[in-house]
Amino acid sequence: MEKPLNIAIVGLGVIGGSFAWALNKQNKYPVRILGIDHDADTIKQALEEGAIDEGEIINEKILQNADLVILTLYPSAIVGFVQTHRDEFKKGAVITDTTGVKGNIVEQILPILPDGVDFIFGHPMAGKESQGFTYADADVFQDANYLLTPIESNKEENLTFLTDLLKTLGFKRVRQVEAHVHDEMIAFVSQLSHVLAVSLINSDQEGRDTAAFVGDTYRELTRVAKINAPLWSELFLHNKNELLTVMDNFETQFYLMKQAIETEDEASLMGLFEEATARRISLEKADSKLQG
Amino acid sequence: MEKPLNIAIVGLGVIGGSFAWALNKQNKYPVRILGIDHDADTIKQALEEGAIDEGEIINEKILQNADLVILTLYPSAIVGFVQTHRDEFKKGAVITDTTGVKGNIVEQILPILPDGVDFIFGHPMAGKESQGFTYADADVFQDANYLLTPIESNKEENLTFLTDLLKTLGFKRVRQVEAHVHDEMIAFVSQLSHVLAVSLINSDQEGRDTAAFVGDTYRELTRVAKINAPLWSELFLHNKNELLTVMDNFETQFYLMKQAIETEDEASLMGLFEEATARRISLEKADSKLQG
Repeated sequence: MEKPLNIAIVGLGVIGGSFAWALNKQNKYPVRILGIDHDADTIKQALEEGAIDEGEIINEKILQNADLVILTLYPSAIVGFVQTHRDEFKKGAVITDTTGVKGNIVEQILPILPDGVDFIFGHPMAGKESQGFTYADADVFQDANYLLTPIESNKEENLTFLTDLLKTLGFKRVRQVEAHVHDEMIAFVSQLSHVLAVSLINSDQEGRDTAAFVGDTYRELTRVAKINAPLWSELFLHNKNELLTVMDNFETQFYLMKQAIETEDEASLMGLFEEATARRISLEKADSKLQG
Repeated sequence: MEKPLNIAIVGLGVIGGSFAWALNKQNKYPVRILGIDHDADTIKQALEEGAIDEGEIINEKILQNADLVILTLYPSAIVGFVQTHRDEFKKGAVITDTTGVKGNIVEQILPILPDGVDFIFGHPMAGKESQGFTYADADVFQDANYLLTPIESNKEENLTFLTDLLKTLGFKRVRQVEAHVHDEMIAFVSQLSHVLAVSLINSDQEGRDTAAFVGDTYRELTRVAKINAPLWSELFLHNKNELLTVMDNFETQFYLMKQAIETEDEASLMGLFEEATARRISLEKADSKLQG
């Protein structure tokens, strides 16, 4: 019988827990799932529900035995964790993170990179508005995108292995991009959307019976306004410059629209709508090509 | 056998066509569906597909026979249509419109209101990004909201009849509100969302491989960026003041967020996120109460 792969998940929140469930669900790789979480109740729950095979509140021997370590920690916690445990990782282990910003994290981890391990930085483009192990669910990864931002020292065989494992967990596409491209794109496609959702719902006025009037559009636009405040504050501030740039670009467009309305410039308004329609249609086409 | 109700639909676009299909689908009211559309091909298609029983390119005898007239015309067309045909409506007929702005339209129609008819102004909170009869679909009305903005002269029995008919067509809630409340709320829950979607997608930079990076959030936020340019230009300009007010409120919130990011004020950022989360949770609760 093939020896199982020891996979450690550090941080059993909604993402870490979802990795545990997805690893349990797949049949391609025989695995033993080891969980580390500072919360004893979470470890207890994860063990009882069968998400992990072994659990520790602080690392005792899990990292020493793990062939793959998946760090599902907050940006503020991950650097400290690697620093503290740098001598405990198994020789030849693959380490990966799931942090939603990359440049800043890579920069901080590179100088403290443990010897003899291969750290592949990554970001699953999937998640949930609800936080905590209880909301973990293997299905959130289904057909989602995964971005890896390789560094020079990464071994081709490890990149291949991790890519295949992620696809086995349900991810549809696993792409490799440079860290700065990742951060620019994430600022635009994800962080800016969260800024808009939060600002939109916060701009509602007191005393309005809004719920009685909303349709699908408002519901969709504010879905991500239910947001993990500590996590997203960190993500925003770790990606400050990129986020401010896309916010500026958004403002420019918002003002064009405002000006057209103020001056009742129907032609300009139509032009903005037509541009948006063309862009959305081309996104849908590209989307269906990528999905197909 | 009960005499069928003659229902005229004026304008067989995606909304008018959807009314036709929904009327065909229901069994409660025996109906005869009469369609008026200036496009001969649309009338031909609607007749051939069985959406309408009778069709005219300009009114010859349809309005004279219609017990109920549903005007599914653009804001710019509706006033002229009522004016032109004011002597052709059947005595005692109920007329209703489906325009997405109300105050401005009511104001223009009141002085030219035909004698002997009961005009009940309304707005189905449902629609599609695609336009034209081909995209008409009875299901778009399923579980959607409908707003009526009654005027003093409306007869209670006609309001009751129209409300019941709309529910028969699939609408879940039919509410009566004042026209100015309607316009303020629509500016916020619908028009502002469209401004954000359009501005967001238009702020994307040339040459980016955006499609490869987008997740559900960006897809949802830009869904309505595919927009009927002539219709929405009219809707925005007919509701100019209300829209500019909610855009100002949005800007205030956007700036609070921007300032917090620029000054790396994590506490303020967290505060904005927590406020947004509380509002979204309360919307979801109200939503499930209303749906339940």
